[in-house]
Amino acid sequence: MITKTLAELAVILGGEVVGDGSVSIRGVAGIREALPGDITFLANSRYEPYLLETSASAVICSREPRRATMVPLLQVDNPYLAFQRVVRVFRPDPYRPETGVHPSAVVSPEAEVGAEVSIGAQCVIERGAKIGADTFFFPHVILRDECQVGKRCIMHPGVVIGSDGFGFAFDSGRYHKVPQVGNVVIGDDVEVGANTTIDRATTDSTRIGDGTKIDNLVQIGHNVVVGSHSIIVAQVGISGSTELEDYVTLGGQAGLIGHIRIGTRAIVGGKSGVTKSVPPDGVVIGYPALPQAVFKRLNAFIQRLPQLFQRTKDLEQRVGALERQPVREEVP
Amino acid sequence: MITKTLAELAVILGGEVVGDGSVSIRGVAGIREALPGDITFLANSRYEPYLLETSASAVICSREPRRATMVPLLQVDNPYLAFQRVVRVFRPDPYRPETGVHPSAVVSPEAEVGAEVSIGAQCVIERGAKIGADTFFFPHVILRDECQVGKRCIMHPGVVIGSDGFGFAFDSGRYHKVPQVGNVVIGDDVEVGANTTIDRATTDSTRIGDGTKIDNLVQIGHNVVVGSHSIIVAQVGISGSTELEDYVTLGGQAGLIGHIRIGTRAIVGGKSGVTKSVPPDGVVIGYPALPQAVFKRLNAFIQRLPQLFQRTKDLEQRVGALERQPVREEVP
Amino acid sequence: MITKTLAELAVILGGEVVGDGSVSIRGVAGIREALPGDITFLANSRYEPYLLETSASAVICSREPRRATMVPLLQVDNPYLAFQRVVRVFRPDPYRPETGVHPSAVVSPEAEVGAEVSIGAQCVIERGAKIGADTFFFPHVILRDECQVGKRCIMHPGVVIGSDGFGFAFDSGRYHKVPQVGNVVIGDDVEVGANTTIDRATTDSTRIGDGTKIDNLVQIGHNVVVGSHSIIVAQVGISGSTELEDYVTLGGQAGLIGHIRIGTRAIVGGKSGVTKSVPPDGVVIGYPALPQAVFKRLNAFIQRLPQLFQRTKDLEQRVGALERQPVREEVP
Repeated sequence: MITKTLAELAVILGGEVVGDGSVSIRGVAGIREALPGDITFLANSRYEPYLLETSASAVICSREPRRATMVPLLQVDNPYLAFQRVVRVFRPDPYRPETGVHPSAVVSPEAEVGAEVSIGAQCVIERGAKIGADTFFFPHVILRDECQVGKRCIMHPGVVIGSDGFGFAFDSGRYHKVPQVGNVVIGDDVEVGANTTIDRATTDSTRIGDGTKIDNLVQIGHNVVVGSHSIIVAQVGISGSTELEDYVTLGGQAGLIGHIRIGTRAIVGGKSGVTKSVPPDGVVIGYPALPQAVFKRLNAFIQRLPQLFQRTKDLEQRVGALERQPVREEVP
Repeated sequence: MITKTLAELAVILGGEVVGDGSVSIRGVAGIREALPGDITFLANSRYEPYLLETSASAVICSREPRRATMVPLLQVDNPYLAFQRVVRVFRPDPYRPETGVHPSAVVSPEAEVGAEVSIGAQCVIERGAKIGADTFFFPHVILRDECQVGKRCIMHPGVVIGSDGFGFAFDSGRYHKVPQVGNVVIGDDVEVGANTTIDRATTDSTRIGDGTKIDNLVQIGHNVVVGSHSIIVAQVGISGSTELEDYVTLGGQAGLIGHIRIGTRAIVGGKSGVTKSVPPDGVVIGYPALPQAVFKRLNAFIQRLPQLFQRTKDLEQRVGALERQPVREEVP
Repeated sequence: MITKTLAELAVILGGEVVGDGSVSIRGVAGIREALPGDITFLANSRYEPYLLETSASAVICSREPRRATMVPLLQVDNPYLAFQRVVRVFRPDPYRPETGVHPSAVVSPEAEVGAEVSIGAQCVIERGAKIGADTFFFPHVILRDECQVGKRCIMHPGVVIGSDGFGFAFDSGRYHKVPQVGNVVIGDDVEVGANTTIDRATTDSTRIGDGTKIDNLVQIGHNVVVGSHSIIVAQVGISGSTELEDYVTLGGQAGLIGHIRIGTRAIVGGKSGVTKSVPPDGVVIGYPALPQAVFKRLNAFIQRLPQLFQRTKDLEQRVGALERQPVREEVP
């Protein structure tokens, strides 16, 4: 078991101790579950009240001023990042599948697999597929023919890369399949969540940029282009040919129609239905998605509709009363 | 083939026959598809009209008074439960995978597997995983390292338990992975639907309580706690660290943000987006989710908006007419 | 490499050349990615501006009149269908899994597999399942016991057919599983997208009609009936016992409650929540779903709510001013 004093951790994380730096830390845990000997972290202000009742021996938090607490604090620039580092101090070697190809995986001899790659149990890597160095495939990942995954990527269980795009031409009372002869190209340092599906392009490529992180059960349609360093939360759906620039965030269960463009650093709220392009730095929400300020304003007005109906009814009565007053003769 | 009279079934189910109890029953079917010799059931009042036209030889229904029908009735306390029992009378041994580990499954020698467990084709059970007695894994289930499933559970095909939580820290223009070193702990008598994903905790455990039933394609984020005897319908998404108490019902495609609490017996309507905690026995719906009564009231007002605009226009004309009347002199 | 003149392609596709028919075509590509030597197509008017800047050597488009372009056009009745055909001219043999059963697949000896069927790596076909001739199963497809798939179907990776329907009876504080003893019956020429799940019926059959195309991550509940030649876009959820007639279109992420009926040629907008039956040729959208015209009208009124509140406030002031005028004496 690894043990560090809080002061030692402060050096490792580049932070400052408020309180007793000599306390011994032996593990990490969530703020509600932590026991004596654990360090925890406070990144979300909802959990601020737990500062008073946590059993943790220390708490990583931001540098903003804070009321005095019993528990020693370790103040840092980015608590979540510091927490990530401290996890590695106490659990330096979390479980990962071994490097190499699991004997139950089916890897085409015509696929190209980089150095230090791990391909988990029952993965299927088809002909012409390429996998960059240091990439991990958990079990049950499917990489279809001619599709590419970059370096240092992580593909979680059940991911399907390169399934056919959903393209049909209607003629004479039935749908005819449009051959999907493009591929999928995924950059470096990309993570894709469990059971997510990324369709191959009709022609050309469906693309995911470097450093982008995709959660579970996401659907990415054919010819979609996702930029670099973007976040796509669980159960999002992106329709064909839509393009995301870099540093975009899509909240959970959001849906984007096809053939639109989401600008750099734009944020789409969870569950939103986006029906037109969003400019860089735009923040949209709702269905159909509107700029966040407009959405909130309209939503506040909707909450006040019952009163508005009542006010209108009152006005009608007051105007009726005025109208029932006898009409004056014209001033001559 | 098994044959019972309706009177015999009434004894088995603890119900009462209305009509001819001597009729022979040889099978079960839906009310629209049933043929002579079948027994069917009426649990949803939408199907009441089918009572008059079903070809079934008998219908299981509730004890409430009912107009006379041609078809004999078997009145019980809980028609759906009675139907379940009668299915077992006529199909005592529905197909289930055999007990034991299918030769194509990959089970770590460091996993603990209880008695009478069935592990289907191509499942992957990683090291440190634990499976309780009498649990069934259909094919293609993945149970990652250190995760636990209780007794008498059913895991449907494609379920992923213990994939990494979606946690990243943003620093210097890119996202850094926060190691997910917790696990998933699933209680007894839990059922999890096809291709559903349950992420492991960042630290500590993602938890599913005893007797909870989860449908297909559901996403459960890291550190979520689901209580006992709850129902989570298909395509629901629950974000990280949200907690459900017991006997909660989440309708299909509902989405819950992270770090909130859903009280005992609360009901979340299908497709709702829940952005704050719900008290025990609360019923919420819509996006953002509101108490059902408020949602319905606001929705009714929205439907009447066209009239409200017209009424306002009328008022403006009437007030204009009043204003155009000559101003009287002040009463002295 | 295959080379055709544009005039030769016009004969193959039954179209008319506008411009130079002698130009040589050697491949196909999207309008933005096309290089000299490629033919592309214009089916979506959003891309009309690209006509002026594409590097393609020719463009397939509709027969409607069009401003003069530098690039030669090939005018046809259905550009998307023509594009599909031209893809086959230049890529006559896109990759498909080989006919036969992959050695890693697990196929019950009690399953019936038709002629010229391809069953990909790690598929599981249980006892009593039936697969029609010329059907392709990509890797990791699960066809559970007694379920049927017709001829010339395509099942994409991770599809689960025949998982248990989500049926429980609540009694004495817990949910009891209702045995799901029906099956799934899929017609001919059906395509099912990656990681989609189709549950078996409680009794009888969940049915998918001929020629219907289903996208990725769709959930189809027990006893659902989908008609022929319908389109179900990604992440749609259909609750138990709902019926779709023929030629229905469901937009992405739409959700349908159980026990309703969607009429022939009806269209459900993306992300809609459908809570009651839709007549033939109906077009509904929103949540709760309304006829498209009503939805658009109400939505326009909602956008104008801020002004309506202001107009009401103005009216209140004007009526107040009128009321403050001295009351006249009654006309005698």
